Amino acid sequence: MRQFSRSAAGLPQLGIGLIGTGFMGRAHAMAFRNVSAAFALPVQLRLAALADADAARATRCASDWGFDHAHSDWQQLISDPEVDIIAITTPNHLHYPMAMAAVEAGKTVYCEKPLAVSLAQADDMRNAAKKAGVVTRVGYNYQHNPIIGLARQMIESGELGQIVSFQGEFSEDFMADPASPWSWRCEEAHAGGALADLGSHLLALARHLMGDVEAVCADANTVHPQRPATVGSREKRFIAVDDQTHALLRFASGARGTFSSSWLKHGYKNHLAFEISGTRGTIAFDQERLNELRVCRADQGSFQRVLAGPALPGYAAFCPAPGHQLGYNELKTLEVHALIQAVFNQGKDGPDFEEAWQVERLAAAIRMAAREQRWVRITEL
Amino acid sequence: MRQFSRSAAGLPQLGIGLIGTGFMGRAHAMAFRNVSAAFALPVQLRLAALADADAARATRCASDWGFDHAHSDWQQLISDPEVDIIAITTPNHLHYPMAMAAVEAGKTVYCEKPLAVSLAQADDMRNAAKKAGVVTRVGYNYQHNPIIGLARQMIESGELGQIVSFQGEFSEDFMADPASPWSWRCEEAHAGGALADLGSHLLALARHLMGDVEAVCADANTVHPQRPATVGSREKRFIAVDDQTHALLRFASGARGTFSSSWLKHGYKNHLAFEISGTRGTIAFDQERLNELRVCRADQGSFQRVLAGPALPGYAAFCPAPGHQLGYNELKTLEVHALIQAVFNQGKDGPDFEEAWQVERLAAAIRMAAREQRWVRITEL
Amino acid sequence: MRQFSRSAAGLPQLGIGLIGTGFMGRAHAMAFRNVSAAFALPVQLRLAALADADAARATRCASDWGFDHAHSDWQQLISDPEVDIIAITTPNHLHYPMAMAAVEAGKTVYCEKPLAVSLAQADDMRNAAKKAGVVTRVGYNYQHNPIIGLARQMIESGELGQIVSFQGEFSEDFMADPASPWSWRCEEAHAGGALADLGSHLLALARHLMGDVEAVCADANTVHPQRPATVGSREKRFIAVDDQTHALLRFASGARGTFSSSWLKHGYKNHLAFEISGTRGTIAFDQERLNELRVCRADQGSFQRVLAGPALPGYAAFCPAPGHQLGYNELKTLEVHALIQAVFNQGKDGPDFEEAWQVERLAAAIRMAAREQRWVRITEL
Amino acid sequence: MRQFSRSAAGLPQLGIGLIGTGFMGRAHAMAFRNVSAAFALPVQLRLAALADADAARATRCASDWGFDHAHSDWQQLISDPEVDIIAITTPNHLHYPMAMAAVEAGKTVYCEKPLAVSLAQADDMRNAAKKAGVVTRVGYNYQHNPIIGLARQMIESGELGQIVSFQGEFSEDFMADPASPWSWRCEEAHAGGALADLGSHLLALARHLMGDVEAVCADANTVHPQRPATVGSREKRFIAVDDQTHALLRFASGARGTFSSSWLKHGYKNHLAFEISGTRGTIAFDQERLNELRVCRADQGSFQRVLAGPALPGYAAFCPAPGHQLGYNELKTLEVHALIQAVFNQGKDGPDFEEAWQVERLAAAIRMAAREQRWVRITEL
Repeated sequence: MRQFSRSAAGLPQLGIGLIGTGFMGRAHAMAFRNVSAAFALPVQLRLAALADADAARATRCASDWGFDHAHSDWQQLISDPEVDIIAITTPNHLHYPMAMAAVEAGKTVYCEKPLAVSLAQADDMRNAAKKAGVVTRVGYNYQHNPIIGLARQMIESGELGQIVSFQGEFSEDFMADPASPWSWRCEEAHAGGALADLGSHLLALARHLMGDVEAVCADANTVHPQRPATVGSREKRFIAVDDQTHALLRFASGARGTFSSSWLKHGYKNHLAFEISGTRGTIAFDQERLNELRVCRADQGSFQRVLAGPALPGYAAFCPAPGHQLGYNELKTLEVHALIQAVFNQGKDGPDFEEAWQVERLAAAIRMAAREQRWVRITEL
Repeated sequence: MRQFSRSAAGLPQLGIGLIGTGFMGRAHAMAFRNVSAAFALPVQLRLAALADADAARATRCASDWGFDHAHSDWQQLISDPEVDIIAITTPNHLHYPMAMAAVEAGKTVYCEKPLAVSLAQADDMRNAAKKAGVVTRVGYNYQHNPIIGLARQMIESGELGQIVSFQGEFSEDFMADPASPWSWRCEEAHAGGALADLGSHLLALARHLMGDVEAVCADANTVHPQRPATVGSREKRFIAVDDQTHALLRFASGARGTFSSSWLKHGYKNHLAFEISGTRGTIAFDQERLNELRVCRADQGSFQRVLAGPALPGYAAFCPAPGHQLGYNELKTLEVHALIQAVFNQGKDGPDFEEAWQVERLAAAIRMAAREQRWVRITEL
Repeated sequence: MRQFSRSAAGLPQLGIGLIGTGFMGRAHAMAFRNVSAAFALPVQLRLAALADADAARATRCASDWGFDHAHSDWQQLISDPEVDIIAITTPNHLHYPMAMAAVEAGKTVYCEKPLAVSLAQADDMRNAAKKAGVVTRVGYNYQHNPIIGLARQMIESGELGQIVSFQGEFSEDFMADPASPWSWRCEEAHAGGALADLGSHLLALARHLMGDVEAVCADANTVHPQRPATVGSREKRFIAVDDQTHALLRFASGARGTFSSSWLKHGYKNHLAFEISGTRGTIAFDQERLNELRVCRADQGSFQRVLAGPALPGYAAFCPAPGHQLGYNELKTLEVHALIQAVFNQGKDGPDFEEAWQVERLAAAIRMAAREQRWVRITEL
Repeated sequence: MRQFSRSAAGLPQLGIGLIGTGFMGRAHAMAFRNVSAAFALPVQLRLAALADADAARATRCASDWGFDHAHSDWQQLISDPEVDIIAITTPNHLHYPMAMAAVEAGKTVYCEKPLAVSLAQADDMRNAAKKAGVVTRVGYNYQHNPIIGLARQMIESGELGQIVSFQGEFSEDFMADPASPWSWRCEEAHAGGALADLGSHLLALARHLMGDVEAVCADANTVHPQRPATVGSREKRFIAVDDQTHALLRFASGARGTFSSSWLKHGYKNHLAFEISGTRGTIAFDQERLNELRVCRADQGSFQRVLAGPALPGYAAFCPAPGHQLGYNELKTLEVHALIQAVFNQGKDGPDFEEAWQVERLAAAIRMAAREQRWVRITEL
């Protein structure tokens, strides 16, 4: 473990360095601000530095969000001796150079998903992190939801019996309109497409709950092969990434399942949903109602709507009673809490670079299966 | 068209002959009794004869259900000159000989699903019916639901735009308990297994709404490879049929989709459900709430719960206002109405022997794809 | 008990006489046709006669629905010696003379709700029926729903503990549009208004489940005091009946509750809904999903969606498995079954003229409480 | 407006003083920490001081939550010159002395609900605040929900037509078990009971959306008149407050409605729910799904589930897209944002001491109506 400076109260001090000031940058900032109030930490957090290529923006956000310093050069932030944890929230293609530099500097790295824009990059990153022995985390924030913790606990404890099936779907509608313009999300080189952009969250969740996938078969297609270059533009750009991908999953445990990812599906805003069925019960979840788990135990015969409450680890840090509801940003605060625990060798395993590589390998296998129209074993990649 | 005797009022008379007195036999009987009250028919129906191998039971049911004659020999019923329509509700392996005899006798045949216990039989049956020129119908009753009619109308009219995806699932829990005993449903020779028994309803519905499937990939497994011979018995029987099957579907239209069928899924009783997504909207249905369709049109952004009402063809025959709800048996009455219309060359096409063979070929392709772990084109069968 | 003629099989024969051929007449006809197939009856039913003031219509409906005779004079039907049960489905103001004549003739009377168009009439009718010793039933069909039977059983068995509250609402939207024209439902003399037309179903259900009401307080108002005389007409008619009524209910048991009835509430088609809460659980029901009961037992903490199934008395007469669903018309068949049981002193108590008077007295108390803006004890009426 | 010191950047500085370190104290602390990151404020907030009677706890929480000073005497906090806004989160009976002192000191007061433990106290407080000209706010946080903003906007814009009814209910189950022990919530002197503790939130929401109530009629009762003194104790305490209260509401606008409040209702955790019906549509809300509004417009006929999204004021401060969901604590942050806007004469009116008195007067009228079993006009109090 790294050696940290100490606060007046004798607690180690941990300096946070945040790169990026978009929506996700702000979400990280709020999470780092909240985690101390929500949890009793073994550490005093310090918002040490913020970096954005736009110097004025870096300064303004640093002031608004409470960071001590602003940098316009991310490399300075990484080498800033007051920074212990590097949080990366920049566009996807920058994750690789930034994370590699942070690993080389021996710092803890907290990188937004996807880890990288190619499986080869992801492979380099997990190997570098392993070799350097640094703590890493990747922002698959949905799995920090206390009700997902309940789902996992029901599976691991055997309460659902032997798990036999998984049906998963992540659908949104933000590209449903053919007039929705091209964006970086439409570029494979930026890890775009419904599978990479949305589906990878579902694959991470599937692995978190169900364990390794052994083989996949898949089908992918692009419904709208060209889109306006910008809103309302007559200029068209060709789109190579998938609008939707469907797959069959065979888990190492023997369970079977289906997977769908679409950004064309009218009516859905954040429909990261699954049903997991075991020999003794079924559970169902939809991220659009993130505080609820539908549960049917064998002896009940029908579904109950279980609401998240203080009995679930993590929830009571925010709300005193069930029915009060956590929000999206609190999943991020829980993620940051897990990160800090990891720095101190506490808490459970979370999604590190190794796990993120596993998720991306699984996505790559699905892509290969769709391209070659055959079953692909994960170990082929 | 056949020549019919005439009633006093000058209406042609149509004699119904029903084979089988189980639950489905009774459902047919109620449907034939109700159809005249519900609809203005171009014909007078007569419940002419009922057959059951158990003579006493045949007599009692004929009396309770209002049939004029009882037979213990189904061949007598088929050759009974007062019988114009043969309704077959016997165990699956008897469909073939009975339907073939009825076709040979030149009578209208109304056969419960599945049409046969092998694709070869089904092929024989469709060819015989075609050659004989008789009207045939198969009991895929779910598609006669007025709200399914709405779904189809929304698709065919283009209201949903180009259809891009289908997610379908038929799950029940009646075999979820490993102590649920062996039955004929566990025998492949009786068209048992989750795919044949449940999934074929979903395939019929998928074809009804989405048209031809071009290719499939699938995965099937048996979670409980042995079950008690009877309830509570220590004697075990080996089970060869699938407990669950998952598949990918490629429609001729270009739409893609997933398919799941399970009789192991706790919490579901009749979860014949689908979501169909197009470029201008999404619809979703669950047979457990058979009077509802969830609809999201592109300009609305979220789902509405549309209730069946008298504006939908068929509904007003039973209820005067939305919210009153049709029941399962009324789907059967609607099926019988469609059958009688077919006899008089009225109404829309329904699932005849040709269509039932298509459904069974599709199921066979899914089975082959699962067995051979590869994509199968339907035309391979 | 009346003496009945006997069928060839030795069963007593019961002749049905139906007055009225509107929607409700047809619903009765279908119910009488179905009940023999659905249940093993201690009797052979005969559809003896049908009456409608329009002779041609009477003849046509008698033929379509299977009645032996047609009458254009309802008094002839009542005195027809082949008629044992008189079913009354005419406009409300005719219930009184028809039912009184039927009672006088010593026949079983099955009258649609409301029993009468004034409390005085209803009082006469219950007294006449009591004096004559005839069996009577009133068409509060919703309480024959098997899932309502489950609700009642949970209450009576103590499974919900001491019952402490009732929240009930019957809302529809068929008069929500101010352009919805005047009809007889807008006349107090025909038992019109949201309270009488809709609310009385809810009051019947409240009494069925919760027992006597002791006192009420209420508020009623007419939002649209005039409506077109007919669709699209410029002629306006003044409306005196309530568009909505709200009330507080105090039950003799000590439970308290709220009551709402509206025909103005957009989005509802048949929202006859209640929540009943006890010291050990809560149940909730909505007629728009008539096969479901939401149940929360104290030790579960959240609601389960219980589907009607063959374990509930009545359900298996129609469907073999849960999830198949009964429809509105089958509630009517169950009502007819209960009627026939009552003729033979079998089955449970049902809503007879005495009970219908109780329901109407309760409605009258609510009207008085609204008019006088004070609590009214039921015994004041 | 008060004069504030200025930050280095020239922004006025606003010092926050928080009294109380329970759950609600922490919720305030998190909200004050977040509001600067979520919104562009016209001010720099400073967490100046925290007070708790327990000095060690005050010090620890001040450190964890980022406050500069800790006080064990709340009067010192109020007179601390660096404190501009006094946030009061102590037990209810302390609201009065603290708020009165803060008002006297000329400071902005942000007091948790209920404003006071008697209507007379509340009356004093609103008068004192009015006289002193200070900005006040009371913690009816639920009305700061963006989706409630949508509801209000739909009502005020006339989109729902003339509003005709309100059905409101606030039910929880935390006292449903008779073994749930006595607490201060069971004391009238601490503003306990289902009506005061839960119902007042619903009354505040009803006023926020529907405007003034003119008259009420009500019924209240105590189902469990004694409870254990502490968990598991044999010692019993008598309970005088209501377990549930039901009421009829007549709004000044002419709309009518029902009101229910219960802490005995199994299955509900935070069921602050309403339905508001107008001549052109209906909306429905349940705090257990705080990011959703069910909407039925007249021309749609059925309910849509509208999800909160960035189009609604306030939402985008936290989440970039619909379906991501705000949590309970973010309603608090929105409340703090409204408070700061109020200090700078920006934003809409919010619930100040005057409005809180109106809410409590309404609750008092309901209590009087229940006690005297008659309609009570609000102006009687």
